[in-house]
Amino acid sequence: MNIVEVGPRDGFQPIEPWIATETKVRTISSLLDAGLRRIEVTSFTSPKAIPQLSDAPAVLEACARMEGLTAQVLVPNTNHARRAMAAGAKNLAYVFSVSEAHNLNNVKRTVDASVDDFRELLSGSEASLSRLNLATAFDCPFDGRVMPEAVLRVLDRLGDLPGACEVCLCDTTGRADPEQVRSLFSLAMDRFPSITAWAFHGHDTYGLGTANCYAAFQSGVRVFDGAIGGLGGCPFAPGATGNTATEDIVWMFERMGLATGTDLRKLVAAAEEVTQIPGAFKGGRVRQALTARRPATERPNTGAGNV
Amino acid sequence: MNIVEVGPRDGFQPIEPWIATETKVRTISSLLDAGLRRIEVTSFTSPKAIPQLSDAPAVLEACARMEGLTAQVLVPNTNHARRAMAAGAKNLAYVFSVSEAHNLNNVKRTVDASVDDFRELLSGSEASLSRLNLATAFDCPFDGRVMPEAVLRVLDRLGDLPGACEVCLCDTTGRADPEQVRSLFSLAMDRFPSITAWAFHGHDTYGLGTANCYAAFQSGVRVFDGAIGGLGGCPFAPGATGNTATEDIVWMFERMGLATGTDLRKLVAAAEEVTQIPGAFKGGRVRQALTARRPATERPNTGAGNV
Repeated sequence: MNIVEVGPRDGFQPIEPWIATETKVRTISSLLDAGLRRIEVTSFTSPKAIPQLSDAPAVLEACARMEGLTAQVLVPNTNHARRAMAAGAKNLAYVFSVSEAHNLNNVKRTVDASVDDFRELLSGSEASLSRLNLATAFDCPFDGRVMPEAVLRVLDRLGDLPGACEVCLCDTTGRADPEQVRSLFSLAMDRFPSITAWAFHGHDTYGLGTANCYAAFQSGVRVFDGAIGGLGGCPFAPGATGNTATEDIVWMFERMGLATGTDLRKLVAAAEEVTQIPGAFKGGRVRQALTARRPATERPNTGAGNV
Repeated sequence: MNIVEVGPRDGFQPIEPWIATETKVRTISSLLDAGLRRIEVTSFTSPKAIPQLSDAPAVLEACARMEGLTAQVLVPNTNHARRAMAAGAKNLAYVFSVSEAHNLNNVKRTVDASVDDFRELLSGSEASLSRLNLATAFDCPFDGRVMPEAVLRVLDRLGDLPGACEVCLCDTTGRADPEQVRSLFSLAMDRFPSITAWAFHGHDTYGLGTANCYAAFQSGVRVFDGAIGGLGGCPFAPGATGNTATEDIVWMFERMGLATGTDLRKLVAAAEEVTQIPGAFKGGRVRQALTARRPATERPNTGAGNV
């Protein structure tokens, strides 16, 4: 299983109090040390819209010195993509939305315009584009449920993607259900066999984070986004709360006997640390379960009928 | 989908401060009003081991007056089963564990002795036995992972069950993974076609509560236990923390287009109420998601690249 840690981007993004650049860099370093080799370290985006990530160039520069790290950088349009590449970004994740309302709100253009921008970018510098994130692939905060046809239409309009560019279907709102996830991936994989790498990005807002990962896994997905500590929650951004906790995803796959290459103990320690950051959302269950204080002896429960 | 609400039993059981009988009865009544027709209302068990449920006869009596309610009563051995029946219980859920260590600790007998007790009880008064709960069917707090063969062996030793008696495989510790759940149910259903009703009881301790329900659903299970508000947590009872929240299970199945016969708005209101009970564990995600305060207008996020 390939886990992509998006906490330093999707998780830090909604946190209002400024997080020092060195704290961000230290977090990324701890996550790398816990075995997470691929980390979305920041986003080149509007500093006015997302002040928290305005230090993207400095974060990226520090990441360039970390051995073994694949530093993914999120970009919402071609201008920011070019800025990121000029700053040395080698692995861009380009994002736009499948639903018109969310794309207009999020990146101020129609879906077709985003597809055209993406294709233009691809034609010039495809080597740096390692991923396409299709946001609101299942549900939109404005339009509600997104039909599979809308996703297939976008994929169809994209034409051939370079082999190194994976496609990530994103449950932006956390309102996807596992049957929907399973069937959309099955449909899309069947229809577009030329796309060789698929990823799933989910939120745990409604408690279906791991269930949706499991469903995506059943369809053949092997790349999963998670945010350490379940970061990403923001009560004032409907539809963008609570990324699925990396440690919960790792726990699930490891229990299923599938290696993730990570050290759960170190992940939980990192999760404990990031959830102490002022303004951070505390999500996930594994962190709580593994850090709960245990009594020296079991509580006697003879005749209790524990189920 | 058939949802069995176990909050008033599994959820209240570990709460230390005394909950007034009338609060328990009022909670059951609210849950019934929210569409939950089948509720595990209490347990006839040792009042010394579980003081919180020592008012079982009074709770059961109040429930007898609630129209449309199927009041399930948990019993850990034949003596308590007879007490419960004498008090008017019509739907007994008999529990013992698949793992020797947990059964010895929980009901002070070997697994084989529990099977014999259950069979003896069946031969006398099967009409009242509506369910057999096999605890630690996936994982044991003492012995770790439980092998499928251990569950199949117990089912084999049980012999023919009356048609009205469903079998519930219980993930007591919350450490089952979805692939394990899916495969054990498939195996067991295949091996014992005479058992016509299967149920799944899970805990969300490690964030796999809904994922495991989805996996059980995929195997054909249609009866699911949940506890309102994700009650059931207890930091001092390893292996028994955090039932899967009823409202999270309902949310998942309803999103999948499968009716549960419940009113989610009322469930969330009931969840808000029970999680205010002193000493109650607050679990689940749907309650938080649906009760979070929203701003009057969306936060502008132009160019933000929300994923």
